[in-house]
Amino acid sequence: MAKGEETRQAILAKAFELSNVIGVAGLSIGRLAESTGLSKSGLFAHFGSKEALEVAVVEEASRQFVQDVMVPALRYPRGEPRVRALFERWLTWGQRPGGCFFVGASAELDDRPGLPRDALVQASKDWIDQLTKAAQIAISEGHFRKDLVPEQFAFEEYGVMLGAHMFFRFLRDPVSLDRAREAFERLVVTARVPGSRAR
Amino acid sequence: MAKGEETRQAILAKAFELSNVIGVAGLSIGRLAESTGLSKSGLFAHFGSKEALEVAVVEEASRQFVQDVMVPALRYPRGEPRVRALFERWLTWGQRPGGCFFVGASAELDDRPGLPRDALVQASKDWIDQLTKAAQIAISEGHFRKDLVPEQFAFEEYGVMLGAHMFFRFLRDPVSLDRAREAFERLVVTARVPGSRAR
Repeated sequence: MAKGEETRQAILAKAFELSNVIGVAGLSIGRLAESTGLSKSGLFAHFGSKEALEVAVVEEASRQFVQDVMVPALRYPRGEPRVRALFERWLTWGQRPGGCFFVGASAELDDRPGLPRDALVQASKDWIDQLTKAAQIAISEGHFRKDLVPEQFAFEEYGVMLGAHMFFRFLRDPVSLDRAREAFERLVVTARVPGSRAR
Repeated sequence: MAKGEETRQAILAKAFELSNVIGVAGLSIGRLAESTGLSKSGLFAHFGSKEALEVAVVEEASRQFVQDVMVPALRYPRGEPRVRALFERWLTWGQRPGGCFFVGASAELDDRPGLPRDALVQASKDWIDQLTKAAQIAISEGHFRKDLVPEQFAFEEYGVMLGAHMFFRFLRDPVSLDRAREAFERLVVTARVPGSRAR
């Protein structure tokens, strides 16, 4: 990596970490300058505007998400094992300090049209597509029922994740992760080919 | 209502409406002064501080939620009909401008300890208690299985609501409400006493 690219990457990692806790809207060039020790003018040279910074943070979040959640899950065998790995990896991701970046940011940006929101919508859609595709593969592998609608499965799985996040992060419910795993089991069991054995 | 109480109520209704769109953290006495035409000093006389204003807004949101969602649902017969009414009323609530106040505010306040967060946690717990109690009643009415765990049912129902909110508000998915209703049906069907008929 060239030096400039390396610096930019280090700034982005810090910006992502910060915005995961204070929110993407709360992140400012000034605040980022404080926590990196870089000058505001130097940061402007890297990002150009608050909006461009926000977009870059969303992209950094997506990069880390792919690296921490998607790539490891894709190493699992096709079908139900991969569906399970995606879910478990996400549960771990949602427990990081500040919780899931995407859940927080989407609540912040839902009424703020613009490039940061577009980038965030795209990231969420990519994730939902991964969940849908994993369910689709589980159907073709004969693990899940042929009449299962993979988009519906992904919707419900996402709902379990959001519920887990709310109960864990906001309500600090000590059994939230157990509830989430049980909900996910019910989802998987009703998706399976009837009579097939637990995996 | 005394005149002072009436004024306070009118201010709160406006504050709630505003914070539903710009967020509870984004709401300031200054911003509220602009949109009500009242003086900042007058507003300070009513609320005392930004924190007290936030708490009052959460309480106003709860009041409206009870009035729009809980009270009408409680008029339905005990058991599955009431469980269904709570869900449908919530779906309508979540479609108001700015979406569900509680979903947005909980993402904003999850890392900000204090009285506004406490009030919001209490409101969310009250709602989850209502969902749990409705499931419990459906068990005692013989509509739902005796071995159903009402807290688990409420957790999963809440997840469906959060998924619906995310797909509807943030992703603007045109089939989000259909997906939510289908997920809810699956939840209800697997909660029912086996062999009992659809209601």
